Amino acid sequence: MKYCHHCTAPLILRIPEGDDRERHCCNECNAIFYLNPKNVVGTLPVFEDRVLLCKRAIQPRLGKWTLPAGFMENGESSLDGAIRETREEAGAEIIVRADSLYTLFNLPSINQVYMFFRAELANLDFTPGYESEQVALFDEANIPWEEIAFPVVRSTLEHYFEDLPKQHFPVRMFDVHHGEDRQITTRLISHSHTFHKVD
Amino acid sequence: MKYCHHCTAPLILRIPEGDDRERHCCNECNAIFYLNPKNVVGTLPVFEDRVLLCKRAIQPRLGKWTLPAGFMENGESSLDGAIRETREEAGAEIIVRADSLYTLFNLPSINQVYMFFRAELANLDFTPGYESEQVALFDEANIPWEEIAFPVVRSTLEHYFEDLPKQHFPVRMFDVHHGEDRQITTRLISHSHTFHKVD
Repeated sequence: MKYCHHCTAPLILRIPEGDDRERHCCNECNAIFYLNPKNVVGTLPVFEDRVLLCKRAIQPRLGKWTLPAGFMENGESSLDGAIRETREEAGAEIIVRADSLYTLFNLPSINQVYMFFRAELANLDFTPGYESEQVALFDEANIPWEEIAFPVVRSTLEHYFEDLPKQHFPVRMFDVHHGEDRQITTRLISHSHTFHKVD
Repeated sequence: MKYCHHCTAPLILRIPEGDDRERHCCNECNAIFYLNPKNVVGTLPVFEDRVLLCKRAIQPRLGKWTLPAGFMENGESSLDGAIRETREEAGAEIIVRADSLYTLFNLPSINQVYMFFRAELANLDFTPGYESEQVALFDEANIPWEEIAFPVVRSTLEHYFEDLPKQHFPVRMFDVHHGEDRQITTRLISHSHTFHKVD
């Protein structure tokens, strides 16, 4: 980020008045450009005892399996974005229940927040979109665990198969840290309590 | 957004290859500038039966009461951002439990996502920060309901006092729509189920 979007003057990295950290500032037109984390939204689509995964046709992690997910766009809700990504990447129509929110991941090292929603496939007419090489259903025994694209996807799948026998799916939030040597650690930060089901 | 951040060429609004919506594109250096929703993160700090509110010293909603919250920054988690905002706006140190995540609001009309975490005040040494005129504790009967700054704050407070007698705080997600005539509607989209407490 070198030049002002509004007036083309060179941007200066400095702390604006009343702020406490450096921002890209324009000394000509006084614009300030803030950089903030982006949300990635997706679903865990299920049909009976199987979950839908997409084989990635694009980088990063080309050829690895993932849940349908992508950047949340302006003008949409996180759930609407997740439904859109499921349609775009897997050609899948889904049914979303009232307790759909499932996992949240903070990835401060790469300035992202992931949110996954549980969903049911409305039918089996799914088909790979532009970003997917293949779309398929897997039961727990056949999940390609060694070929999962991202730790957030692996973690969401692991918790899903852990929660499934109890039919209780607490909302969980995690912090994911990217260490040196490309080592990635995932830590549970917040979860709704474990309760006996009433309704 | 008129000129390229990288090379100062005029930006063109067009649909990039493989995309399905217009973006600000540079035809000189091929940069694409994406606009995505921003996260606002905050806390609901509690001391015994009272909640902490801040009287806003800045626009918008100057003089109205709010929960401490602000834009999530690059390099931090949503919860770390919420703790930072609580320190900055209310000078308050908080204790966060394992089921802290509480409310999420999608505001597609203004491209924001709000997240609030429940927290307990570590002590009563709070003091107004730069953006607050006053910081005070209120029990339910004395909440200045007519002077609350934002619908997301009102909704979070209302659900908190509804959940408090049951000591059960499900994670809830809402869509907030800004209609014409400045009318704002808040709709519950997802909530973790109501269960009897086990642990």
